[in-house]
Amino acid sequence: MRYSQTLIPTTREVPSDAEIPSHQLMIRAGLIRKIASGMYAYLPAGMKSLLKIEEIVREEMNRAGGCETLMPSVHPRELWVQTGRDEDYGDTMARFQDRHGRWNVLSPTAEEVYAYIGSNEISSYKQLPINMYQISFKFRDEFRPRFGVLRSREFLMKDGYSYHATPECLHKTYMKMYGAYKQIFERCGVPYVILEAEAGEMGGSGSHQFTVPCESGEDVIVYTEDSSYAANIEKAAIDPSEAAAERITDAPEEVHTPNAGSIEAVCQMLGTKPEQMIKSLIHSDREGRIIVAVLRGDHELNEEKLSQLLGGEKTEMASEEQIKEFTGASVGFAGPQGLCEKAHRVFIDHSAAAMPGGAVGANKDDYHVKNIVPGRDFPLEGENIQTADIRNAVEGDTHEGKKLLFRKGIEVGQVFKLGTKYSTKLECEFLDENGKRKPCLMGCYGIGLNRIMASAIETNYDDSGIKWPISIAPFEAVVVPIGKKDEAEAGEKLYSELKEKGIDVLLDDRNARPGVKLNDADLLGVPVRITVGRKSLAEGNVEMKLRSESENSLIKLEEAAGKAAELVEKLRSSL
Amino acid sequence: MRYSQTLIPTTREVPSDAEIPSHQLMIRAGLIRKIASGMYAYLPAGMKSLLKIEEIVREEMNRAGGCETLMPSVHPRELWVQTGRDEDYGDTMARFQDRHGRWNVLSPTAEEVYAYIGSNEISSYKQLPINMYQISFKFRDEFRPRFGVLRSREFLMKDGYSYHATPECLHKTYMKMYGAYKQIFERCGVPYVILEAEAGEMGGSGSHQFTVPCESGEDVIVYTEDSSYAANIEKAAIDPSEAAAERITDAPEEVHTPNAGSIEAVCQMLGTKPEQMIKSLIHSDREGRIIVAVLRGDHELNEEKLSQLLGGEKTEMASEEQIKEFTGASVGFAGPQGLCEKAHRVFIDHSAAAMPGGAVGANKDDYHVKNIVPGRDFPLEGENIQTADIRNAVEGDTHEGKKLLFRKGIEVGQVFKLGTKYSTKLECEFLDENGKRKPCLMGCYGIGLNRIMASAIETNYDDSGIKWPISIAPFEAVVVPIGKKDEAEAGEKLYSELKEKGIDVLLDDRNARPGVKLNDADLLGVPVRITVGRKSLAEGNVEMKLRSESENSLIKLEEAAGKAAELVEKLRSSL
Repeated sequence: MRYSQTLIPTTREVPSDAEIPSHQLMIRAGLIRKIASGMYAYLPAGMKSLLKIEEIVREEMNRAGGCETLMPSVHPRELWVQTGRDEDYGDTMARFQDRHGRWNVLSPTAEEVYAYIGSNEISSYKQLPINMYQISFKFRDEFRPRFGVLRSREFLMKDGYSYHATPECLHKTYMKMYGAYKQIFERCGVPYVILEAEAGEMGGSGSHQFTVPCESGEDVIVYTEDSSYAANIEKAAIDPSEAAAERITDAPEEVHTPNAGSIEAVCQMLGTKPEQMIKSLIHSDREGRIIVAVLRGDHELNEEKLSQLLGGEKTEMASEEQIKEFTGASVGFAGPQGLCEKAHRVFIDHSAAAMPGGAVGANKDDYHVKNIVPGRDFPLEGENIQTADIRNAVEGDTHEGKKLLFRKGIEVGQVFKLGTKYSTKLECEFLDENGKRKPCLMGCYGIGLNRIMASAIETNYDDSGIKWPISIAPFEAVVVPIGKKDEAEAGEKLYSELKEKGIDVLLDDRNARPGVKLNDADLLGVPVRITVGRKSLAEGNVEMKLRSESENSLIKLEEAAGKAAELVEKLRSSL
Repeated sequence: MRYSQTLIPTTREVPSDAEIPSHQLMIRAGLIRKIASGMYAYLPAGMKSLLKIEEIVREEMNRAGGCETLMPSVHPRELWVQTGRDEDYGDTMARFQDRHGRWNVLSPTAEEVYAYIGSNEISSYKQLPINMYQISFKFRDEFRPRFGVLRSREFLMKDGYSYHATPECLHKTYMKMYGAYKQIFERCGVPYVILEAEAGEMGGSGSHQFTVPCESGEDVIVYTEDSSYAANIEKAAIDPSEAAAERITDAPEEVHTPNAGSIEAVCQMLGTKPEQMIKSLIHSDREGRIIVAVLRGDHELNEEKLSQLLGGEKTEMASEEQIKEFTGASVGFAGPQGLCEKAHRVFIDHSAAAMPGGAVGANKDDYHVKNIVPGRDFPLEGENIQTADIRNAVEGDTHEGKKLLFRKGIEVGQVFKLGTKYSTKLECEFLDENGKRKPCLMGCYGIGLNRIMASAIETNYDDSGIKWPISIAPFEAVVVPIGKKDEAEAGEKLYSELKEKGIDVLLDDRNARPGVKLNDADLLGVPVRITVGRKSLAEGNVEMKLRSESENSLIKLEEAAGKAAELVEKLRSSL
């Protein structure tokens, strides 16, 4: 490709909303441009990289037995209502009425449509397993789109879906996809860790997440020092705390805490610390039943863990009216004493259960109670009550006795065993060997193509720009003639030779200053750079430099194409 | 690919809405399934064909100097308001408000976004020309989706956009794209004609349409017998009719025509024929000004021709109130006498002007006037009045003296010279050599990938099923073992050998009856079929058959792979 005949608008100006390196560099190198909040255009160089990622994903999916398909991006809303996810996705899913008044959604993922296809086309166990995927645009109306293409509203996703008669068969395909994902990230030159994960919105019973460790990530990786365990924060299982050696023996004591409806306000008023408080969060399930979560004041509820304990059911913070009706008090004054028996379900976090005692809400406006002792003043077990792990891990926690460590990461892929969640609701069924009708077991497998691109940059850059892994670089090599006469001619010749050798090469044929050209080549991150300068050319040489190294080497002009091809081949085979 | 490990759900059941062969065959061969009105899922075999078309389109675009890009599918509505196309597209464009209340549209095409990119990234003539394209999903909320993927609501389109400093440069790129399109259709094995076309919604000054002649088409191709001229019906220019030898000399005569507001009703009442009537259509432009179109009673107004005469401005039928106010009568009683002077613009079709005279509306409810003579009772020329070609061609019309013929076709691609329509409105400008700011000249180039697929089927099928051009067939060859033992083993071996030879081959390893397998192979339209049957295999032979021929030939098993590869190669090189 010739620089003069494409659009690679490198720039020094970085918009103020570009907070992280990959976002800044994708703008600076002219790979993407913003069209609207969370909506990006891929310009020619960015698209070349995206297409290379797409082709790697496609090859590995096909190799692992996946069949490519393509579903519409607009789905009938009914399908989403049938599975309950119209509600789950809430405002994150875009919906519109068509000209005939029918409601449609913009696909944020496609379990429903694939289960619908299965419900019509699968009849017998003899057809199973089937493993299909698509590479297509998805839309999620993020509340706060940011970090460029990492959390954009529109993105390119490979989503795959498999159908099975038995758990063994599902597991086999799941592991094939797991293996294919490893191959994909390795071929893309992106470092990754594999985490045990919660299935989240997808539902189901088992899941692994592929995450790129890096500072700009929004996800939290929780792992043990010896790496024997790694999970995302939603999943990371925490050892139960040891119960306090001595419980408080003082009797409960009501204290007046006017307007102190938050942990901070109460602590200030009572002179205690959050970790000495016991907080009771009042949630409501879909049917409006009350779920109480009891936690140490400084801990965070992990909604995924709570949902798992409820068999996958989602809950949300109860409304002010519900809280008032249930506790008898305004928001911020709930306490477990007396409430546990009335709730539909109660979950007490291990750490709260282990406390010597603490202050709680009095279930009465403007009052708290001190010296409430777990097990003494409220039950820790019961028909509707259980002590469990329902919080996010924090510094100091352990997993199977090993200290937990934390780092940030970018989620780039996830595989799920969905089980029968969707196939039951959408009647995606088959007849087994005995002629009995059963729902298909399903798996689903997602990879964010744009995220692979951004995380490759997050993990491969320096002050001068991007340092692409060659497999997904917009160009493998760049020829930079400095000067208009012999240099330009030698550059043209080199360009032709490299193209003939099957190398994806850019010729910087712009009429621009040498510094601009060389800086742009580095910014764009092309792995192999060949500079044709006046001085060295006069001696029959060109300069060759790897993006990953700082040293130029002088190569004889007539050997340059061969040498560059060698370097490219070496880089290719390293991935 | 193994039939047992994919989903190719052939069926005999054709839904009642599948009216044309390609729609029926795509369903029957298991290529697509309907998800909702006008929304189709591409199953594995259909997707393979679509991907092959996509790759041919991509290769030809790149060869012709296009740079691949990818715009979001959701655009900010403002951009469409700025060009006026938010209004033009009306209900055909889907719109939705996002969670922050901003209006978005689902891209039906992308001139606005590309002009917007140009407005930000192009500054100098030195950057020009630029030629970018994308292959992406588009959405148009068709009032009546039909004919399967031919008129679906969601479809895959290659749309390209070019930017230029001069008309010469635009023309050069336009002709490159024109040539690339020819290459694409030839490589896809789709017969086509190139028509002069109107630019329609796209606006602009020049356009050619690539149309596949076939009975199921919705477009009308108008051509001369010697093929020296071909155009779509919107564009086809008609020679002016010769004026009637003798005009009517009788004086105008008002007649009572109660409730007769349609041509048919008046004719019945007066005992005349539609071709003896002169009708006056009252239109309104965007600013509410009245445009009158005067036609022979049996002719159809061509809105594109009218729009061209108005410099690209769109008009629509005036409202009942506007008509009442302008003519003094209800809809159906307008006549040109006395109205022409009051209208903003008046266009009289050549054929109407040539009439000896005829009946018209009296501009008074329930009355018409007979014996109105063009030129005598209403003017044919004037400051705001002109005689012009404003109707659709009909049987009997000529173009430059040659008789016009008509046939149906499917539009599969169109190229447009947009001129500065979008660049002016969205300030997509450049500085020329003299530092003067000018709007870019733009071109745009669209191809419907799904339409190529459907029209390839419309022009290549028989009673047994599809007869794919090999370049876009889901598979190049199919191996059909009839029997479970030696036949299956020989089939496996052949399958491996063919794969090794780089042939895209399907192995029908299903446990199904021979008739089912052979019929499915024909239905699916695989160009080369190899049947491994018990009888012939006992003699060391297999049967080989081209889909395009009815004769089987016996080939020695050990020569079968080589022979099949030869046939495939021959078919490939024929395209």
